[in-house]
Amino acid sequence: MSKSRAGSYDPRAFKALTFHDATGRFREGADTPRAYLERCLETIAEREPVVKAFAARNEASARAAADASAARWKAGRPLSAIDGMPVGIKDLLETKDMPTGMGCKAYRENFPKRDNAAVWALRQAGAVILGKTVTAELGGAEPGPTRNPFDAARSPGGSSSGSAAAVGARMMPAAIGTQVGGSIIRPAGYCGNVALKPTQGAINRGERQATSMSTHGVHAGCIEDMWQVAIEIAERAGGDRGCPGLFGPPRAPAAHKPERLIVLETEGWEGLDAGSRSAFERLLRDLEAKGVQLIRRASHPLVEKLENAVGNATAVCSAITAWENRWSHRNLVDIDPDGVSERAKGVLAKAEAMSLTDYRAALVERQAAQLSHAQIAPLADAAITLACPGPAPLWSNAASTPRPTGDPVFNYPSSMLFAPAVTVPLVGVSGMPVGVQLMGQQHEDARVTAMARWLLASVPPIVEE
Amino acid sequence: MSKSRAGSYDPRAFKALTFHDATGRFREGADTPRAYLERCLETIAEREPVVKAFAARNEASARAAADASAARWKAGRPLSAIDGMPVGIKDLLETKDMPTGMGCKAYRENFPKRDNAAVWALRQAGAVILGKTVTAELGGAEPGPTRNPFDAARSPGGSSSGSAAAVGARMMPAAIGTQVGGSIIRPAGYCGNVALKPTQGAINRGERQATSMSTHGVHAGCIEDMWQVAIEIAERAGGDRGCPGLFGPPRAPAAHKPERLIVLETEGWEGLDAGSRSAFERLLRDLEAKGVQLIRRASHPLVEKLENAVGNATAVCSAITAWENRWSHRNLVDIDPDGVSERAKGVLAKAEAMSLTDYRAALVERQAAQLSHAQIAPLADAAITLACPGPAPLWSNAASTPRPTGDPVFNYPSSMLFAPAVTVPLVGVSGMPVGVQLMGQQHEDARVTAMARWLLASVPPIVEE
Repeated sequence: MSKSRAGSYDPRAFKALTFHDATGRFREGADTPRAYLERCLETIAEREPVVKAFAARNEASARAAADASAARWKAGRPLSAIDGMPVGIKDLLETKDMPTGMGCKAYRENFPKRDNAAVWALRQAGAVILGKTVTAELGGAEPGPTRNPFDAARSPGGSSSGSAAAVGARMMPAAIGTQVGGSIIRPAGYCGNVALKPTQGAINRGERQATSMSTHGVHAGCIEDMWQVAIEIAERAGGDRGCPGLFGPPRAPAAHKPERLIVLETEGWEGLDAGSRSAFERLLRDLEAKGVQLIRRASHPLVEKLENAVGNATAVCSAITAWENRWSHRNLVDIDPDGVSERAKGVLAKAEAMSLTDYRAALVERQAAQLSHAQIAPLADAAITLACPGPAPLWSNAASTPRPTGDPVFNYPSSMLFAPAVTVPLVGVSGMPVGVQLMGQQHEDARVTAMARWLLASVPPIVEE
Repeated sequence: MSKSRAGSYDPRAFKALTFHDATGRFREGADTPRAYLERCLETIAEREPVVKAFAARNEASARAAADASAARWKAGRPLSAIDGMPVGIKDLLETKDMPTGMGCKAYRENFPKRDNAAVWALRQAGAVILGKTVTAELGGAEPGPTRNPFDAARSPGGSSSGSAAAVGARMMPAAIGTQVGGSIIRPAGYCGNVALKPTQGAINRGERQATSMSTHGVHAGCIEDMWQVAIEIAERAGGDRGCPGLFGPPRAPAAHKPERLIVLETEGWEGLDAGSRSAFERLLRDLEAKGVQLIRRASHPLVEKLENAVGNATAVCSAITAWENRWSHRNLVDIDPDGVSERAKGVLAKAEAMSLTDYRAALVERQAAQLSHAQIAPLADAAITLACPGPAPLWSNAASTPRPTGDPVFNYPSSMLFAPAVTVPLVGVSGMPVGVQLMGQQHEDARVTAMARWLLASVPPIVEE
């Protein structure tokens, strides 16, 4: 990644598109969901030719949904606080009115005309399903055409590339992403989003019961919209099978100042660029100046234990996910050998070289890490770390070069711990966003959201060249 | 159910089709997997017109697989102990060479050309995938055309109707079933099978990640074949995502005499017919005569606690399953309103009247029952109960009458406890089989299998008119 090329992002100046503050005007009749949608479509017309966030859009259906929503607001009977909100759906999830391509040639004809449970819930809440957002192939590492909204020469991150880029480009106030390793929090961090990767199982994945670490989550322009989308889905469709679903209040929790935070370095610490590390350390000093006590690995043996327990997270998470995808990907390759990328075939080959014992060993490591994480609950309110290892990676112009979507190294811990994580856009490095992430204990999604809200409200954004 | 109509089953005389004792002759060249398959096809030709166990067969593909297996045995290099074994696959699971109809009109065109992970593993082990066996609609209560092999006027049970009936009719030595409430153990009990419903998650369900209580399991003619099929799948494809998979030895465990058994009455006790209750009490007296100590609810407060914890199992399991199927069944009805039975639509309507709080309450009841079950682990080696509430129900000749598949009331406990269960054909009532079930603690599949083997070897079958 070249440090010399500067993007257009300044966290002090960037104003994301928000929805919660528009509904008062819907109520008064000074604005309508249809007009809101048309403004989104104008931004899309302007930005989409470069950003390429969408795999499909159904504008006719979205306009009809927005008109129906406008009538409900006019009648004083909105279905929910997100009635009329344009929302994008990551193209791994099925929607009955658009194809589901999964970023994969083998799925180019896939149009099952079903709604994923979360999509069903969004429609029940009155949300306007505007389009399918580009995903890296099968939620993996092979990117689609999407570009970073703050520098088209860079990746938006993956695999929720289109969801993160569309929100970063102000095309939509919110979009659904999914994360197995780092597919929500990392691209959100690269694209200046707020985002929630909830507790494992907290949002019903419906037909998309991918792997044991896969979660649906929300990309948004602000905490209020992020929480509202998540809770409106969960109230209607609950969590995954066997899970109680997202817990929390019907409106975004108020800002809550943490007393103590654990600074989680993760495996990514040593590889961090100087600008991002400097910005993060400045942020930590600001927190201390505000009276937040920080606990680092050097200062508490249980934090050191946790760092060690997630110190092999890349290998553990990669092994678990590769094994769990093994049979569905084998079927895909057997059916359509040219429909799957060489990169995905490489992962499949690794999976097929694994034994059940290898998989069981990885599960044991994951469970041990979860026990270690539970142990630190009494020490602090949450853990803080970066959402991504510096600014989004540059893409070479050479078509043949594998284009990176960035390293999920800061994201594997919350994934393997089944822990809720929220990223907030508090840092700019080289004119590009770098997200800051809070992680809580399982089922503390609302508490982490409240602390993330406090961070955004109380800590001035930090800029490094 | 009329007691006057007698079936053709006598547990003292019935000899199921077995495979493990045929492979020695494959080795010697005195028999071949192809000849074994042809004998199965002869039985099918004879029995299938009445029993109707199959939704589809691919005899050409099965013959080719049997020939390939014969060559491996001849070369002294079988892929496994089940190389050449004809196996049926419940028609909820995908097979790349046959359609997957799920007993549901809405899936009449469904042919995804994929192998379920368990089917993939069976093929890797050399098994001969002979056909798809009839399932009740979507694994629910609306039966297909299959009839009980011991009385065509009766149900084979459901939802693994075809798997149970095919094994009971000696058409095949083994078949894969699935259970959410009582869909393996009950039909196996009605059809004179041996069967394993393993620990939740012990056998990889692959694409069929149905509900939080759904498991793949095995119907077979004997313990040796039952265990072998299960362990060959698990060794190759492991368990469900996030689960360690079936634990146990590479060959069926030796018979093991239990010292103490808990007699689990379940919700079904009061409704049991006199013949089945009498047979079961005779069996219990035989066990006591052999020195097995029995612990009943009246004699230990923790057993009484467990009985109470599973005393509402029908309601708890039905609520959980209805809620978890809610979104996929809603999609199905929206796509093809006439493609789903009124019975399934009735369950969907109940699910759509549930709230997330109702679901969470049912999950709490399930988890509390699991804690209660874990508490009794030190008391006894396993629990014993019936596999089904008496002989299989009679079907009316009136086409319009809803045809019952029997009450899963004796099966819900092991399902909600995520516990392994094995049924053995030790009882005949009115000329029909009534299975006897052992249930162990989670992951004790091999231990339960060893005790079931001891039961079969040591307790004389019991016959009641």
